[in-house]
Amino acid sequence: MIERLNHRPVPGDFAAIPSAADRARWTEADRAARPARLARLRARMAAAGAGAYLGVRPEHSRYLTGLVLGDGEEKVAGYSGWFVIGPDDLIVFADSRYTLQVGREAPDARIEQVYGDLKERWPEIVAALGARRVAVEASHLSHAAWSDLAESAPDTELVAAADPGQDGRPGSGWIEADRATKEPAELERVAAACTVADRALAALLPEIRPGVTEAELAWRLEVLIRTGGADGLAFDVACLAGPEAALPHGSPGDRPVQSGAVLLFDFGAQVAGYRSDMTRTLFVGEPAARDLEIYELVHRAQSASIEGIAAAVAAGGPLPTGPEADALARDVIAAAGHGDHFGHGTGHGIGLATHELPSLGRRAARTILPSPTVFSVEPGVYLDGVMGVRIEDLVSVDSAARKLEILTCFPREVVVVGG
Amino acid sequence: MIERLNHRPVPGDFAAIPSAADRARWTEADRAARPARLARLRARMAAAGAGAYLGVRPEHSRYLTGLVLGDGEEKVAGYSGWFVIGPDDLIVFADSRYTLQVGREAPDARIEQVYGDLKERWPEIVAALGARRVAVEASHLSHAAWSDLAESAPDTELVAAADPGQDGRPGSGWIEADRATKEPAELERVAAACTVADRALAALLPEIRPGVTEAELAWRLEVLIRTGGADGLAFDVACLAGPEAALPHGSPGDRPVQSGAVLLFDFGAQVAGYRSDMTRTLFVGEPAARDLEIYELVHRAQSASIEGIAAAVAAGGPLPTGPEADALARDVIAAAGHGDHFGHGTGHGIGLATHELPSLGRRAARTILPSPTVFSVEPGVYLDGVMGVRIEDLVSVDSAARKLEILTCFPREVVVVGG
Repeated sequence: MIERLNHRPVPGDFAAIPSAADRARWTEADRAARPARLARLRARMAAAGAGAYLGVRPEHSRYLTGLVLGDGEEKVAGYSGWFVIGPDDLIVFADSRYTLQVGREAPDARIEQVYGDLKERWPEIVAALGARRVAVEASHLSHAAWSDLAESAPDTELVAAADPGQDGRPGSGWIEADRATKEPAELERVAAACTVADRALAALLPEIRPGVTEAELAWRLEVLIRTGGADGLAFDVACLAGPEAALPHGSPGDRPVQSGAVLLFDFGAQVAGYRSDMTRTLFVGEPAARDLEIYELVHRAQSASIEGIAAAVAAGGPLPTGPEADALARDVIAAAGHGDHFGHGTGHGIGLATHELPSLGRRAARTILPSPTVFSVEPGVYLDGVMGVRIEDLVSVDSAARKLEILTCFPREVVVVGG
Repeated sequence: MIERLNHRPVPGDFAAIPSAADRARWTEADRAARPARLARLRARMAAAGAGAYLGVRPEHSRYLTGLVLGDGEEKVAGYSGWFVIGPDDLIVFADSRYTLQVGREAPDARIEQVYGDLKERWPEIVAALGARRVAVEASHLSHAAWSDLAESAPDTELVAAADPGQDGRPGSGWIEADRATKEPAELERVAAACTVADRALAALLPEIRPGVTEAELAWRLEVLIRTGGADGLAFDVACLAGPEAALPHGSPGDRPVQSGAVLLFDFGAQVAGYRSDMTRTLFVGEPAARDLEIYELVHRAQSASIEGIAAAVAAGGPLPTGPEADALARDVIAAAGHGDHFGHGTGHGIGLATHELPSLGRRAARTILPSPTVFSVEPGVYLDGVMGVRIEDLVSVDSAARKLEILTCFPREVVVVGG
């Protein structure tokens, strides 16, 4: 039987929030890492015979050039933030709204002033690089934009910047595949984001009581995260009470928390661009026996997956594949008869994006997990209209160092609040 | 000479925040409007010989089906929220995380359970609709996804769901073009979002004083918006002091506000899915003569554009085109010798997205503005490294009713704070 926590976590139980010195160190680490990141991409370009690379994902712009766009800003930025890499060139597009910012944040890049006229400008841009074949982020560039570029420079071949797929699955994007393997300063930032989230949930506990609404608690948790060391949220806070917890991606509403019901929080912080992701399912007042049973099942499933991966790490590898890591959790839930109540995958990588490679799911690539990396392990059981439980932690692994670490430190035991 | 406001605005100067009755009325208005929205789309499909429409934009899913995804949620939702419309069908894709939510929010839609396997499922989906040609949101669907669908059902033709372009410019998406014309309940919600923003800025004024940082003020303004009647922000608050105001899309930093400098806020609220957008450039302490001169120039340019449009509305039309509305403001700034310091367009439509049609810019379509509609008028002058001024208001026009209304009511006179 799973233990019930007999003390209430407080913020002081967890590590300190990131300092100005931490942030300065991370900025410097990124600056120092960028040449190697660019060299990996250029090696892929050379292997594919591509004389240039056109990138559009804001995460990639940040990773390779240093330019930071706000979450969602790409929707209003036009072509600003798109970038082109040649064997010796690093170009960032910017319209007049962004030129000063690009000059400041991406000092190694050359700015190309592009307004709404990329289609007209494209032939001269590729000609200046001498590129006959351009690798493009085809999973993020729209089909309309691809067609415009293909039409405007018909002698320049566009190819998808992605590895070949396997078993009918799409291949990974080149930079997406590179980003799955994390540098030490990247893992530090994910860990720092986890710390901020741990502390925020602990600080929220005294405010949870019957009658307060999901939306009120979600807002309070956001305030605690954003005034407690984070630069922002990783994603909107989910706070779901009782039957609503059966919606794995539900939104908090004006529903009051009820005594005797579960209360699920799924949330994350963002620190210097890197994100955390954690789910805790708490009990408001005395837990019902059925709810405790489901909680224990999900906890066992999560532990089975983490312990299975830990065993492989301790043995010096090989690590499991994504589907194998998924099965470690899923088999426990299926054996208890709840296989149909666990519809999503067991986990996902995290970093500059909340969801990135590797994927721990039934349909994931059948290749062993990368290393060093960090991913979530988050099985759940959802009983429609009744209740749901999910427990999610972030796990970092380094198989060469035989090291596995759980970065989210808020207790996973049964936590009873608002009693 | 522009007047200086001799009282400080307070929240009570503005309209009341939206009530539960307003929200219920808007929900009902959407429900009632959806058949006409779908009928317009189906008429376009029929005219293009398309037997089905594949939509991927979350704004479109909300507009046509009622399903609400959170901002940015499309990045982790997979295919959930994508939709297919046939002459008699309305289908929404959902994986297990979203089925309950789709059933609740889009009760008129049939749910198609789609996981990572759309490529495999696509042939049967189009075959069931009997569609030989499918119109696709090509400006938002990735090229990789387009290629997958084209490959999996080679007998089904995919075409872009967009009007033909003119003068080498891309054409408008069908639903984007429809959404530019606003229903009364849509305009009400934009106005309500403006009211929330007006009140929030007024409530912030007493907190502005030398020494407080841009980031602190941006956070406080966000708190006032989100606890003052909004469902969320329209976009991240920009708060830029002194020389930083020369960055038209800068981010607030740890820079303290200085006396004698400008302080620019660009921000918006979100109410029941609809957004506002307003920029105010305030003066902290006694304004410098040069800053006042620039402010007066921008104010004159904005007034020239609004008054020009108002004259056309009062005369019963025709409304100006987007480039003409832009020129009304731009010519004033250029005549003062600051044409090179105003690099962006004069305005953009707003609604479910912060930036949508119509566009008021030099490169915009040379067609008269739609009606009824709502757009921003936001000229600016930016002196690199010195200061910047932008004044932005939302203007709704209804040429048939000969009505023009400025929805953002915070004063546009010179406002001195923190003196």
